[in-house]
Amino acid sequence: LSPASELLDAIETPVAVVDAPTVRANARRVAEYCARHGLAWRPHVKTHKSLGIARIQLEAGARGLTVATPREAEVMAEVTDDVLLAYPPIGRERLQRLMHLPERLSLTVALDSREALRGLAAASREAAREVGVLVEVDLGMGRVGVQTPEELTALAGEVAADGSLDYRGILFYPGHIRARASEQVRSVEEAAVRLDTFLAALDRSGLSPATVSGGSTPTLWTSHHFGGITEIRSGTCIYNDRDMLELGVCDPADCAYTILATVVSTSVRGQAVIDAGSKALAKESLRTVGDGFGWLPDHPDLVVSALSEEHGIIPLKEGGWNPRVGDRVRVVPNHVCVSVNLQDRLVVLDGDTAECWPIEARGRL
Amino acid sequence: LSPASELLDAIETPVAVVDAPTVRANARRVAEYCARHGLAWRPHVKTHKSLGIARIQLEAGARGLTVATPREAEVMAEVTDDVLLAYPPIGRERLQRLMHLPERLSLTVALDSREALRGLAAASREAAREVGVLVEVDLGMGRVGVQTPEELTALAGEVAADGSLDYRGILFYPGHIRARASEQVRSVEEAAVRLDTFLAALDRSGLSPATVSGGSTPTLWTSHHFGGITEIRSGTCIYNDRDMLELGVCDPADCAYTILATVVSTSVRGQAVIDAGSKALAKESLRTVGDGFGWLPDHPDLVVSALSEEHGIIPLKEGGWNPRVGDRVRVVPNHVCVSVNLQDRLVVLDGDTAECWPIEARGRL
Repeated sequence: LSPASELLDAIETPVAVVDAPTVRANARRVAEYCARHGLAWRPHVKTHKSLGIARIQLEAGARGLTVATPREAEVMAEVTDDVLLAYPPIGRERLQRLMHLPERLSLTVALDSREALRGLAAASREAAREVGVLVEVDLGMGRVGVQTPEELTALAGEVAADGSLDYRGILFYPGHIRARASEQVRSVEEAAVRLDTFLAALDRSGLSPATVSGGSTPTLWTSHHFGGITEIRSGTCIYNDRDMLELGVCDPADCAYTILATVVSTSVRGQAVIDAGSKALAKESLRTVGDGFGWLPDHPDLVVSALSEEHGIIPLKEGGWNPRVGDRVRVVPNHVCVSVNLQDRLVVLDGDTAECWPIEARGRL
Repeated sequence: LSPASELLDAIETPVAVVDAPTVRANARRVAEYCARHGLAWRPHVKTHKSLGIARIQLEAGARGLTVATPREAEVMAEVTDDVLLAYPPIGRERLQRLMHLPERLSLTVALDSREALRGLAAASREAAREVGVLVEVDLGMGRVGVQTPEELTALAGEVAADGSLDYRGILFYPGHIRARASEQVRSVEEAAVRLDTFLAALDRSGLSPATVSGGSTPTLWTSHHFGGITEIRSGTCIYNDRDMLELGVCDPADCAYTILATVVSTSVRGQAVIDAGSKALAKESLRTVGDGFGWLPDHPDLVVSALSEEHGIIPLKEGGWNPRVGDRVRVVPNHVCVSVNLQDRLVVLDGDTAECWPIEARGRL
């Protein structure tokens, strides 16, 4: 641990900086929400990919962790015995990596196809390892997930009938619901009607699910309006980002993650250029946000308006911030998960102290 | 070296695949163009970040290498004695890393401000290491670079007067010129007029530049229309991408880099979902390309229309490709440099054989 101000002045930029007290407060708030509504919290670690942040989530009461890749599962096995892979493991290599996870680990896999089911069943049989399965259903996003109650009961029935797989229920991701907080209950209740038809079909077929896994950060605080839901996987809420701010899901003080950048040029009048470009912030335009790729919390009327790989352009305002080359500034990225995936380390601030953490589950090797 | 087909069938996706003969042909073509026009080629390695690819460029006749970050310089020092850092090194940490590069390395730095100049001069003096300097000028992009001939001669004069710095000339990046090949000469000649005024001012001040470094891949084949140019740094041309295809700078056969992906879901009628999302392809909308984030060279009428982190959506066409879960497909990303930065390794195909290469200069640590 070094004094925070010294480290922030000296460290090479661009670099990701995380405020630990804010992370702990974010984790506590979700855990309290879940406790109030009888939901389990199984946060998706794709947002942070960090053992240290996962530990904070588990200490706050997370029931286990959600991952997207074999690497995330392998890394997170160090801190949990309960992992959900919310992504179909297609291909022998992915399946083999899953089968080699520590035996103590309870592994559940979400899938939406016979091909995925049969590949997983074969690998599971060969490895003599029981694997839990959630069948993914589509509540309107139109990305993945079975589309009809008939497809659901057929696939769930095949899972339940397989000797090496353990049918544990269903999973959905309401990623299409991006209404602002105030208008969200209606959108959630519309999607919940579709969920009801899936649940009713399962009940009729004797396949009532033990687990109904849902949740996203945009719908975080209205998750309990999905009737029958038992757990949420919301991940972004641990850090938050400009998109979540614009959606009204969090306050500026809840943004735990920023990119610390240095002003590298002021040659063009009326703008400052920082060293955080698309290789640090990620070039993610968001539908909710008019312009730009990041927001400056210390200069709330300024945004990063354009990115090239190693340059971020900040249009300045008359009479406002007028930086010199060498000044440092913090940026909240539009989409935090993809920014994290670009970093090799985190500077974690905890009060007056700071330390560097690796991002252990980054990459795919 | 493994048989290529075996490795491509077995390796976990998404993974970056590079065709070595195409890389060698791309390198040869640029080297021939440069030889024909008396230009040096100092390719920007940000595109590939790989020692193996840099070796191919140097063997084809590259005069040295261009880098953007200290890490790229440190890594590339293994294969070259001549590095241009085309990015101002602001901050003590970056400067210290530069000063610790092997002593045999000829180091040149581009900068556009007094602050950058003074920081570099101080570090160079302290380390007793001569550093070359190119002053960056703006030919119309409006990102970085001095704006007027007066600013240029003042800054170049200060460099020339500094005992620890070696004034070597000027640098520009014509990143604003994105006209198609056929209409490009006119745009280049417009920017060249601005270059002329900079060069004339330097001549009048007794600061005639030994090096005039320019070049981009969109303007690659018209670089010689910049009067006075001595070298080009074009980097993307080693791999090419969907943007370069659309600009008419290359042919489909010149695209050396693809992301190999696996179909993971076909649940939603009319679309296939692959495991290459924004964490493999990068979510880069390009002005030249109508829609989507990647193109399927094996199914030329198809594109990846939408990305989430681990999902790419491919709308299918009636009567065309109708994949099953588990099928594999190649995607040419919109912008190859940012896709490369997301990978941990390359599968390099060379005829019937394949091997995995690290991407040594990825990241910032």
